[in-house]
Amino acid sequence: MTNKIQQIATWLKSHDGRVAYIADPTNVFYLTRFKCDPHERFLGLFIFPDDEPFLVCPELEVGKARESAFGHEIFGYRDDQDPWQIVRKAVTTRRTGSGKMYIEPTTLPYKKALAVQQLFEGTSFGSAEELIASMRRIKDATELAAMKKAGELADYAVKLGVDAIKKGRTEAAIVAEIEHELAKQGYSEMAFDTMVLAGDNSALPHGIPGTRQIKEGDFVLFDLGVVIDGYCSDITRTVGYKFVSDEQQKIYDTTLQANLAAIEAVHEGLRIGDLDGVARKVITDAGYGDYFTHRLGHGLGLGEHEEPSMSADNDALLEKGMVITIEPGIYLPGVGGVRIEDDVYLSDKGTELLTHYPKELQIIS
Amino acid sequence: MTNKIQQIATWLKSHDGRVAYIADPTNVFYLTRFKCDPHERFLGLFIFPDDEPFLVCPELEVGKARESAFGHEIFGYRDDQDPWQIVRKAVTTRRTGSGKMYIEPTTLPYKKALAVQQLFEGTSFGSAEELIASMRRIKDATELAAMKKAGELADYAVKLGVDAIKKGRTEAAIVAEIEHELAKQGYSEMAFDTMVLAGDNSALPHGIPGTRQIKEGDFVLFDLGVVIDGYCSDITRTVGYKFVSDEQQKIYDTTLQANLAAIEAVHEGLRIGDLDGVARKVITDAGYGDYFTHRLGHGLGLGEHEEPSMSADNDALLEKGMVITIEPGIYLPGVGGVRIEDDVYLSDKGTELLTHYPKELQIIS
Repeated sequence: MTNKIQQIATWLKSHDGRVAYIADPTNVFYLTRFKCDPHERFLGLFIFPDDEPFLVCPELEVGKARESAFGHEIFGYRDDQDPWQIVRKAVTTRRTGSGKMYIEPTTLPYKKALAVQQLFEGTSFGSAEELIASMRRIKDATELAAMKKAGELADYAVKLGVDAIKKGRTEAAIVAEIEHELAKQGYSEMAFDTMVLAGDNSALPHGIPGTRQIKEGDFVLFDLGVVIDGYCSDITRTVGYKFVSDEQQKIYDTTLQANLAAIEAVHEGLRIGDLDGVARKVITDAGYGDYFTHRLGHGLGLGEHEEPSMSADNDALLEKGMVITIEPGIYLPGVGGVRIEDDVYLSDKGTELLTHYPKELQIIS
Repeated sequence: MTNKIQQIATWLKSHDGRVAYIADPTNVFYLTRFKCDPHERFLGLFIFPDDEPFLVCPELEVGKARESAFGHEIFGYRDDQDPWQIVRKAVTTRRTGSGKMYIEPTTLPYKKALAVQQLFEGTSFGSAEELIASMRRIKDATELAAMKKAGELADYAVKLGVDAIKKGRTEAAIVAEIEHELAKQGYSEMAFDTMVLAGDNSALPHGIPGTRQIKEGDFVLFDLGVVIDGYCSDITRTVGYKFVSDEQQKIYDTTLQANLAAIEAVHEGLRIGDLDGVARKVITDAGYGDYFTHRLGHGLGLGEHEEPSMSADNDALLEKGMVITIEPGIYLPGVGGVRIEDDVYLSDKGTELLTHYPKELQIIS
């Protein structure tokens, strides 16, 4: 058993668990190093307190699963077979006791929860999510190494984007330029859809790059990430083209102060909601509180967004080993938007930035 | 109300429904034309038999939602607010009766099902999925126009890929070349990760393009799709580089015959499982039955994979207005894999192909 699967098996024993059914592909990867995106097909990792785990995946993926770190029974199924029959059969050969069944309630579809309930009569559900999230949010050395590399590539991707800014170029063309250059060097997996937003569009925190052309006086906002060995980076930088107005300069400076103040405030044991408050206070004091419309950031790792959520109402504390994003923003309709985002690792020695692209306001000429 | 939402409201009346809670972002888009990928955040469309529908989405997306075809109440929430409170409040202002609550059981997470159940006391669940899938699988003229364009671009993308084949080039570099050229022309949304697989990798139906370089004697398999106005294409073509062996030629010819036989057999009222059988028989008769390890295809539309599933056990019948993929394949370890996939529209007049890239075996020199 991998250490991580063993950790779950042990936890089940002390939590009246008869089985953990892990269906989220990212959690399956975390526990087995088997990468599988089954779309609507079935994928399930079953872990028992006192017996061997097993994995069920599409027949087509069995070869890849056998090459992973998961050294236990693997069952494939074809499209014309019912995977639940295969699960049922495998379960009957395991000692399962009579405790709770632990699932992932925020991602496991209702229908699968009903199906698995039928296999374990009289079972009530518990959540395995907090356990796995608590494991995932503390990064080990291997994970950190991947994330450092992903951070360096995010810096490089922003540089590629800034270098590609030219009057009349579209947002979409700059996205293509960034991704083409990265892919040529073998980095073709982005953490999410690369965002390049210009002018008014930069004030849409979830905008989609399109045919908007770069004009003088625009903010150009880059939000992107690269995936290395499954691990994500996530950086945002905003630059000006040719010139910016006084108000643009002011919202830029305010956002940067908020970013720097929050990074400065990071330390083990700090309440996460209070860290959001540090950045929010800078922005509110400058009069832009209503235009910082989202949380300060999020945990980062295998997921582009994972625990902890860096929001005002989060009472959890910062812990050593976490990687979080700090990404305050101000979105002023008619003027433009600024967001400045870094990935921050809380190490034994303090705060370590994984993203390093310069943050003073750059005016591209 | 859009016609589609009206159709659901009417259906609720005749199915003892008090509410339909639609959470799948693609279904929400289908019904409202509001495109929103909320990640882990809350998105919900609530439809009632005898009252106005409403939509709840992240505050950041409200502007975009107001510009959509959804002309009813829209509630935004911030990251520090509980969207369920907002849902609760909106529900109390609606006439809801006492019938069933219709949800999407195969995608709605267990936790959300529990949360919504608490809002409607004494409610039992029904599934809205079959209704929406039956609506989605019949394409109207607007949808078909988008899919034709998406099909043309898929043809073009394969041509770009074939033109990019060169000795020593990696799979990933060819992917980058295809996507870069498309993006330069404004088509930056692919239906799924573009697949270019060479040599042994072509025998992995779900392989990931990497650093494998093109060599003489390789099969090179392209599987890709482009998204236009939300609608997907999905094409697969396989070509040879410099030469192919007799066995490669044989599996190519067999796959092509299976593709052509299935397309020829398409007609309204045919049992879908039998269409899978038509292609499977060709491949089995040639001795490769064990190497055609997946279903014949799937429905296509807003989803890269949607209803109907073109598998042997599907007793449903082909209907006018459907768009399906026909994609037999043979994956022979050590020799390589071939898959030939077309998108097929079942029109009033018969069968219409949406993908047109030539299918005779091309040997790239």
